[in-house]
Amino acid sequence: MNYKIIGKFVGKILLVEAIFMLPALFISISKGENNSIFGFSCSIIVTTLLGLSLMLGCKNAKKVFYAKEGMVCVAISWFLLSFAGAFPFYISEEIPLFIDALFETVSGFTTTGASILLEVEELPMGLLYWRSFTHWLGGMGVLVFVLAIANGDKSRGGFAMHLLRAESPGPKVGKLVPKMKTTAEILYAMYIALTILNVIFLLLGGMPLFDSLCTAFGTAGTGGFGIKNDSIAGYSPYIQNVCTVFMLLFGVNFSCYYFIFIGNIKAIFKDEELRLYLGLVISSIVCITWNIYKSYNDFGEALRHAAFQVASIITTTGFATTDFDLWPSFSKTILLFLMVVGACAGSTGGGFKCGRALLVFKNLKRNIKHSLHSKSVEVIRVNNHVIEEKVLETTNAYLAAYVFIILASVIIVSLDNFSVTTNITAVLATFNNIGPGLEAVGPTCNFAGFGDISKLVLILDMLAGRLEIFPIMVLFLRSTWRYK
Amino acid sequence: MNYKIIGKFVGKILLVEAIFMLPALFISISKGENNSIFGFSCSIIVTTLLGLSLMLGCKNAKKVFYAKEGMVCVAISWFLLSFAGAFPFYISEEIPLFIDALFETVSGFTTTGASILLEVEELPMGLLYWRSFTHWLGGMGVLVFVLAIANGDKSRGGFAMHLLRAESPGPKVGKLVPKMKTTAEILYAMYIALTILNVIFLLLGGMPLFDSLCTAFGTAGTGGFGIKNDSIAGYSPYIQNVCTVFMLLFGVNFSCYYFIFIGNIKAIFKDEELRLYLGLVISSIVCITWNIYKSYNDFGEALRHAAFQVASIITTTGFATTDFDLWPSFSKTILLFLMVVGACAGSTGGGFKCGRALLVFKNLKRNIKHSLHSKSVEVIRVNNHVIEEKVLETTNAYLAAYVFIILASVIIVSLDNFSVTTNITAVLATFNNIGPGLEAVGPTCNFAGFGDISKLVLILDMLAGRLEIFPIMVLFLRSTWRYK
Repeated sequence: MNYKIIGKFVGKILLVEAIFMLPALFISISKGENNSIFGFSCSIIVTTLLGLSLMLGCKNAKKVFYAKEGMVCVAISWFLLSFAGAFPFYISEEIPLFIDALFETVSGFTTTGASILLEVEELPMGLLYWRSFTHWLGGMGVLVFVLAIANGDKSRGGFAMHLLRAESPGPKVGKLVPKMKTTAEILYAMYIALTILNVIFLLLGGMPLFDSLCTAFGTAGTGGFGIKNDSIAGYSPYIQNVCTVFMLLFGVNFSCYYFIFIGNIKAIFKDEELRLYLGLVISSIVCITWNIYKSYNDFGEALRHAAFQVASIITTTGFATTDFDLWPSFSKTILLFLMVVGACAGSTGGGFKCGRALLVFKNLKRNIKHSLHSKSVEVIRVNNHVIEEKVLETTNAYLAAYVFIILASVIIVSLDNFSVTTNITAVLATFNNIGPGLEAVGPTCNFAGFGDISKLVLILDMLAGRLEIFPIMVLFLRSTWRYK
Repeated sequence: MNYKIIGKFVGKILLVEAIFMLPALFISISKGENNSIFGFSCSIIVTTLLGLSLMLGCKNAKKVFYAKEGMVCVAISWFLLSFAGAFPFYISEEIPLFIDALFETVSGFTTTGASILLEVEELPMGLLYWRSFTHWLGGMGVLVFVLAIANGDKSRGGFAMHLLRAESPGPKVGKLVPKMKTTAEILYAMYIALTILNVIFLLLGGMPLFDSLCTAFGTAGTGGFGIKNDSIAGYSPYIQNVCTVFMLLFGVNFSCYYFIFIGNIKAIFKDEELRLYLGLVISSIVCITWNIYKSYNDFGEALRHAAFQVASIITTTGFATTDFDLWPSFSKTILLFLMVVGACAGSTGGGFKCGRALLVFKNLKRNIKHSLHSKSVEVIRVNNHVIEEKVLETTNAYLAAYVFIILASVIIVSLDNFSVTTNITAVLATFNNIGPGLEAVGPTCNFAGFGDISKLVLILDMLAGRLEIFPIMVLFLRSTWRYK
């Protein structure tokens, strides 16, 4: 294990985090929020010192860097990032327990949006900004950001590739361009452009700048932290519809936007994952609208709520305009199903991912056919590209890990003696980085009632979900630490 | 598709079923139950005529028989078997709706034990006997039975092997001896011997003969239909403990008993699946006893209930001695987990199967290791035998099909607007052939409240679960019916 290169890189990540805390500090100063000024000042100093000492302590690192180091580096970075990110909440005493502060921060960086706060609106604006900003940073990936801004000398030895692969969501990370650093730059450029567009559309609806920024951060990262107790319910229908559209846009594989950018529109229409994603969105909206329209004043209102909640859940954002825990079972079950499927690979959304579901389904079909005609040899194609058997195997293993982690987590969380539905949806909502579940963790409730052990399990679930299981599992594998 | 050989075989199955209805008819006559005498007489005549006409209509069948025919034959047999098996309930007017009679019969043959009856004790004894006997027949498999009694001329052309493979549970059907007919004979001999032993132990506890027979049928098939409204709760602790032990015994891979029979005791201690199964049983009993002992009079009573329910759920039997829906969340969640895992492959139990879980887990571990050291080549061993990659791939596809069917079923069933927990556990309990779920389908409730569409879905789930998905899915595949 090349500890030095990992230490050096993690140090750099912490420095970047300290810099990103500055805007939150300025907001606190301008609003005269003493608690959070103190919190951010201390946090910035501690994080900077930690980052600097790591960088200085890990000088002269060898350039050798394998997939193993990539996974460990990503996992450790995310742990430390969340740890340091929790300082402002804890030091300012706005969240008195450190486990709660950590839960809130991990929920932020992993773009989950599950909260332990009873009253969001009581938080100082500086902390509200930081809370929403963690979504934006976690959405596209912090390491991807550092790669995008780093000077080019690291792109040798597979360094960038291994990191990008370990941090980015989806069964297979496609390089947009041959150079990984350029890929990271393009990804962040598109991400920033879409976020700005989102802010502009929100401002046009009369939303204040601060609200627009925070809402756009939560939308772009598909996170779901709101700055109001009732999430998005209090805003105008126009703003709710803008959120619906942008949530769906941020759930699309970013390579699609790159294809638009380089003028290859054809590739998008043929994209099987995108078709599955849009198919699921449209059919779910139709089913839910049909199921709920009696409870609302008119068809348009039902459609708006249905579309918003479908977009919010399939992209794993977690904003809410209405308490969908009160909807009929059928609608709730569709939302549960969307929780499991999730958004497109290569988007900021979480979940199992449409692309992976597509692979699992195609592989299943091939297997049934094969059991009939045992001599048939068939390859699996997505978008007319032959999928390597290795990718299929990893995807199936991913499904196994997915099921295994959910079962194990639900068993541990059930020790707190909430209802079965609460436990299952709490795990699904954190592991898939969605936010709200049903019943005691429904859209009008929060995660404050869970015990410390459950909170720890849910924190691990959020991280495992965001980093797609393997980097976190690797940390617990003996062979990772066995030899140098 | 070789329709004639399928028709001829299905005809034979129906004749065997008609013969098996005779004891129930005799019981009805001896008790003077007019309704069920009429019901059984008509059913036997209709089933015999149907069977004979199929056999005569499908003379001179070619001997060519592939895996495809095996699957289709098993699937069609089970549909027709359930159809004819529902006649006595329907014709005797004890179950007025045919869909309910079909649900009850499918639940019997698939050894599920889910019931739509509100008052079991009101049923005539002839029908009670038939209801329990369907468990016994479905447990080891009807086609296996016919193979065991058939004259040897069919063992050519892979006929017996394909049928046995399609009907028997587990990732890989091991032949005990080279000849399939002899394997079927040995399986049924062990099955009958264990059932008789079970009856003797129940009689020793002072249980009436009729009760002992019916209870042993439900235990042997890991079915769970009781003849009392309160299942096994009203019997003595001795009888409950006998049930616990025999349920666990019938959840073991029958090849283990064959190894004992031929004196190869060593093979059993080394069997990894058996160790996983017993490990799960013991640790679940410990956890649940610890979790519930405050609610019971003493530690012994808590242990007895915990052991009974764990045995009942992991073997997918579904008997109950207490309303476990009232237990704390932790205990309920462990039972949910056991519902999903299920018993050993090659037993009469349902579920995903311990052996399959073992394969999925080992494959997952290999995949994570492989993602670290991409050059490593590793085979997976169970009991020191190398597992073929083909088996691993099929097992993973099985997991995918398992998850997919559960999600789809829950969505459809949720249209009846029961709670989320009810819907999820109803599907799990039928698909894994367990019987009771939680809340509205808990151990003191039943499935009568569901609508017709939900009942149909649950019927298909029971069949798909018992036949391990693929034979049922094959029926819906276009390519099955495309060419002759």
